[in-house]
Amino acid sequence: MYILKVMNNASIIIIGNEILSGRTLDQNSNFIAKRCSKIGINLDEIRVIPDKVEIIKKVVLESSKKYKYVFVTGGIGPTHDDITALSISLAFKRKLILNKRAKELLENYYKNTDIQLNKSRMKMAYLPIRSKLIMNSVSAAPGFNIKNVWVMAGVPKIMQAMFVNSVEPKLRKGKITLSKSIKVSVPEGDIAKMLEEISVEFSKINIGSYPFYKPPEIGTNIVFRSEDLKLINKAVKKICIIFKKKNILFSVD
Amino acid sequence: MYILKVMNNASIIIIGNEILSGRTLDQNSNFIAKRCSKIGINLDEIRVIPDKVEIIKKVVLESSKKYKYVFVTGGIGPTHDDITALSISLAFKRKLILNKRAKELLENYYKNTDIQLNKSRMKMAYLPIRSKLIMNSVSAAPGFNIKNVWVMAGVPKIMQAMFVNSVEPKLRKGKITLSKSIKVSVPEGDIAKMLEEISVEFSKINIGSYPFYKPPEIGTNIVFRSEDLKLINKAVKKICIIFKKKNILFSVD
Repeated sequence: MYILKVMNNASIIIIGNEILSGRTLDQNSNFIAKRCSKIGINLDEIRVIPDKVEIIKKVVLESSKKYKYVFVTGGIGPTHDDITALSISLAFKRKLILNKRAKELLENYYKNTDIQLNKSRMKMAYLPIRSKLIMNSVSAAPGFNIKNVWVMAGVPKIMQAMFVNSVEPKLRKGKITLSKSIKVSVPEGDIAKMLEEISVEFSKINIGSYPFYKPPEIGTNIVFRSEDLKLINKAVKKICIIFKKKNILFSVD
Repeated sequence: MYILKVMNNASIIIIGNEILSGRTLDQNSNFIAKRCSKIGINLDEIRVIPDKVEIIKKVVLESSKKYKYVFVTGGIGPTHDDITALSISLAFKRKLILNKRAKELLENYYKNTDIQLNKSRMKMAYLPIRSKLIMNSVSAAPGFNIKNVWVMAGVPKIMQAMFVNSVEPKLRKGKITLSKSIKVSVPEGDIAKMLEEISVEFSKINIGSYPFYKPPEIGTNIVFRSEDLKLINKAVKKICIIFKKKNILFSVD
């Protein structure tokens, strides 16, 4: 377990029946994935799970043990189906209490609006004891951090503000995995053998082959990922020479 | 375990480093989720995992035990990073063999093109022994079904053709969960108390509250899900009367 935890890795847990029913396309995990790539955190898993206390408890605990960071989105609003704070307080056996600072944040925000800070909204200030707040610059109601779990809103605009302003600055930056990609105009079966040879020769680079099929556009994106840019460039150069010789059209990104 | 398996539930496993790196937005799970909703299969989980044999083995086995159907996408192409068939053959301890019917499909398809059926492409005909084929009307290379696991391509157009034409007709249709939604022009905190009361009164309906925040559009979608349309209509009617009384703007979908 320790070996895994010293790695700068992460998982995302998306809580949301609306994703599982197909009603909503999840875009939160793509946003977090991109940000993680930029700061050298390896995203090892994304899980989308339903709004059920027992399942949230189980998956959060499992992930918390397995990954250095766990990013959770969804279920921290004022309505009856917002059960994330409760579920996580149960998972870590920590009381759900009225967080004074969260209460202040809500009071300060709502006093300048014509919206009433009613009992339902005050529910958003009840957090597991000893949580740290994740600031919400959009609509005040905070997310929270408990152990290695970072809980954010499900609404994309709010989640993004939370992640960028209040989560990311607190994460340990890792070695950034750099990438280059080559787009070729042939299907991947034409270049599979050559790619395999290159991937054996450059075994320290992760080389992915991603075919696309949107006629008339048919072809392959080859993606090179490594912390070592020089090595990537060497592999890219080698492949480009082969493509030129074979008269295969390509562009490097 | 048995109780779970007789339920008409499912999970999706998306195999793909390109999703985890944020490079690609996964749209396959949303497509499958929508189709499942339409035929009465409850999607209980989506997992996105990396292209690693040991992880694929573990997650596929876990999911196969837990859910009635497991839909897997990605990693069945001709390149070195396509390791799904191998991983699943290892998971179920079934030899990876040249499937004669798959070989024929490839031969018939490629003989009418100027594309060569080379050794790399023939790799796509190696499947776990006793797999059933999933037809691919786009580019011939089949997916496969082994036990309750259905393995499809990662390219959306191909995956969709496989699912609609060759997977869906073989699944047991369940009771369809019907849904209606009400869009209101107020934030969810304004209606949380009322929604809670309704959700207690109509405890057999799953009532979800989904705020949206795209200024100037701020409001809430309330989604009612149940197999019983009459019950949904009753709840919707009740809420609409309350909204009218309170002069809250709304539309029913």
